[in-house]
Amino acid sequence: MYIDVKNILHELNEEIELLKSKVSHEPKLISLVVEPDPSTLSYLKTQKKTTKKYGVNLEIIESHNLEEDLNYYNEDKSVDGIFVSRPLPKRYSELDIARNINPKKDVEGVSFFNIGSMYYEEELFVPCTAEAVVKIIEENTKIQGKNVVVVGRSTTVGKPVAILLLKRGRDATVTVAHSKTIDLNEITQKADILVVAIGRANYIKQNFVKEGATIIDVGINVVDGKIVGDVSSEVVEKCEVTPVPGGVGSVTSLILIRNVFRAAINNSI
Amino acid sequence: MYIDVKNILHELNEEIELLKSKVSHEPKLISLVVEPDPSTLSYLKTQKKTTKKYGVNLEIIESHNLEEDLNYYNEDKSVDGIFVSRPLPKRYSELDIARNINPKKDVEGVSFFNIGSMYYEEELFVPCTAEAVVKIIEENTKIQGKNVVVVGRSTTVGKPVAILLLKRGRDATVTVAHSKTIDLNEITQKADILVVAIGRANYIKQNFVKEGATIIDVGINVVDGKIVGDVSSEVVEKCEVTPVPGGVGSVTSLILIRNVFRAAINNSI
Repeated sequence: MYIDVKNILHELNEEIELLKSKVSHEPKLISLVVEPDPSTLSYLKTQKKTTKKYGVNLEIIESHNLEEDLNYYNEDKSVDGIFVSRPLPKRYSELDIARNINPKKDVEGVSFFNIGSMYYEEELFVPCTAEAVVKIIEENTKIQGKNVVVVGRSTTVGKPVAILLLKRGRDATVTVAHSKTIDLNEITQKADILVVAIGRANYIKQNFVKEGATIIDVGINVVDGKIVGDVSSEVVEKCEVTPVPGGVGSVTSLILIRNVFRAAINNSI
Repeated sequence: MYIDVKNILHELNEEIELLKSKVSHEPKLISLVVEPDPSTLSYLKTQKKTTKKYGVNLEIIESHNLEEDLNYYNEDKSVDGIFVSRPLPKRYSELDIARNINPKKDVEGVSFFNIGSMYYEEELFVPCTAEAVVKIIEENTKIQGKNVVVVGRSTTVGKPVAILLLKRGRDATVTVAHSKTIDLNEITQKADILVVAIGRANYIKQNFVKEGATIIDVGINVVDGKIVGDVSSEVVEKCEVTPVPGGVGSVTSLILIRNVFRAAINNSI
């Protein structure tokens, strides 16, 4: 069975409407792009449409000096939120963003301050994809005492999902596996809840999963011009699986928009 | 078999001597104590002896306003390192320290900046006990591809050990279990490396472990006036186990001292 995220989207839409009614200005979101490639620019075009629909003014700015530009927009009062487009060129690392972005404008939740808060179990802005994953799990199954396996150890999915699910009150037992894990399928087979962020099309087959598990597919891969996830389609016969597209990605987009409105409210106080 | 940490202590001693030769002043370490109880004061007395032995001037200061005092010593040029004694009274949380302590003086590695760096795989000051655990594991067994189970999800042991062992190059597959984990022994039995930080005397018995596993006992419990760990003594018949006392705690103490010298060097630049 596929997991339907429309309830979550509906709730997020309502939350955004409520926040919108409290902001007197059109929120301004800056996307810094370093050495953009065509696919990044095409992705940003889509994002421009989404933000426009929700009444957010997205400005795409080509950056030639990331630290300098972050410092500039960190201070610019007219800017509510900032994010940096990925992929980054090799001379930059995630650390350069995490260290320098103003935590109040860090709508993607990647700054030291926001990561630190999450680590100490206070959720302010947390990495959007990780929040989407946790929201979908909470909506669809009990978490306490469950064995969760997260495949992937990135700073935007694997690590934050693990930290968020370990939080007191959620109380999952969490395993983080990754590309260097030996006999991955033996580990994933034991998962009551499986979060997959590998980045390899249709990698997770039926022999990787336990009957009845809840599976969150974070993968976005292009195969023959079609977008597919990391979980192969026949897995839906055994498990509840989020669709790709239309699952985690849709929820993530709305979380980003909601965060921009939250930042705008804080900015106008 | 018990694991002998004397090689690690020897290496740390050498590292400290080397750092010492580069510092021209006696490093000053401030311990802030809020509402001290007798056991905290007695522990600090021991610490005072250790620091003295290594040529560190430890000043114990009773704090009536933690944020104010942190701000004061954060700026005080004569102070190289700061730590806050635990337990904290209920009106304070770990967040109050993490948010306010100057990362350059944060010799325990608990500040947002240092936690954030660790999260992004850059190790500056990391939580001392977690570094001790990782050092002992690295000295005694291969980590890559191993299944590590960490029992406990604290901000000073469980979470940082997990993050440090997931780091690229170390590449462990890591499970974090805790007090809400169901059938804990089924999970710990699968561990090639088991890190135990539960805080319950002799809790881990033979039926919790796999033959030949490497076990790091972080527990410090007092039973009939004697200090014992979380791992029961008969486990040494099946596994390699760190002793308590004389294991993780001894390494942790030296890491703290080393960090004070590192901070002193940075402070004198």
